[in-house]
Amino acid sequence: MRRRHAEDKPREIRPGYHCRGRVWIEHNGETYLGFGRVVLLEKIRELGSINRAAAAMGMSYKHAWDLVNAMNRHAAEPLVISSRGGKGGGGARLTAAGAAAISAFKKLHAELSAFLAKQTAKLPR
Amino acid sequence: MRRRHAEDKPREIRPGYHCRGRVWIEHNGETYLGFGRVVLLEKIRELGSINRAAAAMGMSYKHAWDLVNAMNRHAAEPLVISSRGGKGGGGARLTAAGAAAISAFKKLHAELSAFLAKQTAKLPR
Repeated sequence: MRRRHAEDKPREIRPGYHCRGRVWIEHNGETYLGFGRVVLLEKIRELGSINRAAAAMGMSYKHAWDLVNAMNRHAAEPLVISSRGGKGGGGARLTAAGAAAISAFKKLHAELSAFLAKQTAKLPR
Repeated sequence: MRRRHAEDKPREIRPGYHCRGRVWIEHNGETYLGFGRVVLLEKIRELGSINRAAAAMGMSYKHAWDLVNAMNRHAAEPLVISSRGGKGGGGARLTAAGAAAISAFKKLHAELSAFLAKQTAKLPR
């Protein structure tokens, strides 16, 4: 089943014809990075916890952990390292590979936006 | 709710990292053309009937008619003209505007494929 991402939220209605699109990265045929996953990585970096990031996104803890595990499994090295238990009740931090993954995906997303703008310019007014 | 299109069907699993994507055209903030809709237009051209096209795609008649009405409403001129009743039980034909819409979307889809191949080339092996 496909889930709704932040990209799908209501947005301003633009008059006329527009090309719209979506992009994601797969590894061995499975989703590795997409818009929602990258927002999750950013929230983990900001909040230092997978559970707090999930809560901030209105996402179940289980779903957030599943996504982090999938990203870590498909990445060459882990994007997120979590420490369970301990005084602070466990936390999570983004690795350098995680920061690089965010940057790479944002670059790809910006390239898609440029592509869509170029294609939209070809459509009738 | 978002529906599954032909694009979503199981496909060969490609090893390594790949950019994947989807593209569609909106008019005044509503979907005008997408991959599934264009397949429907092609089936209507091939079979001369919205009902037969729907059956060939495993789609309900109502859904196919809704899609055709939406496309016609958003297009500058109708893409499909249907004649109800009569000896043959009614049929549908693709207009020149409909043929042009198929061509334009296929071009856009090919451009997206080229974009994704270029972006995939930037990913680690």
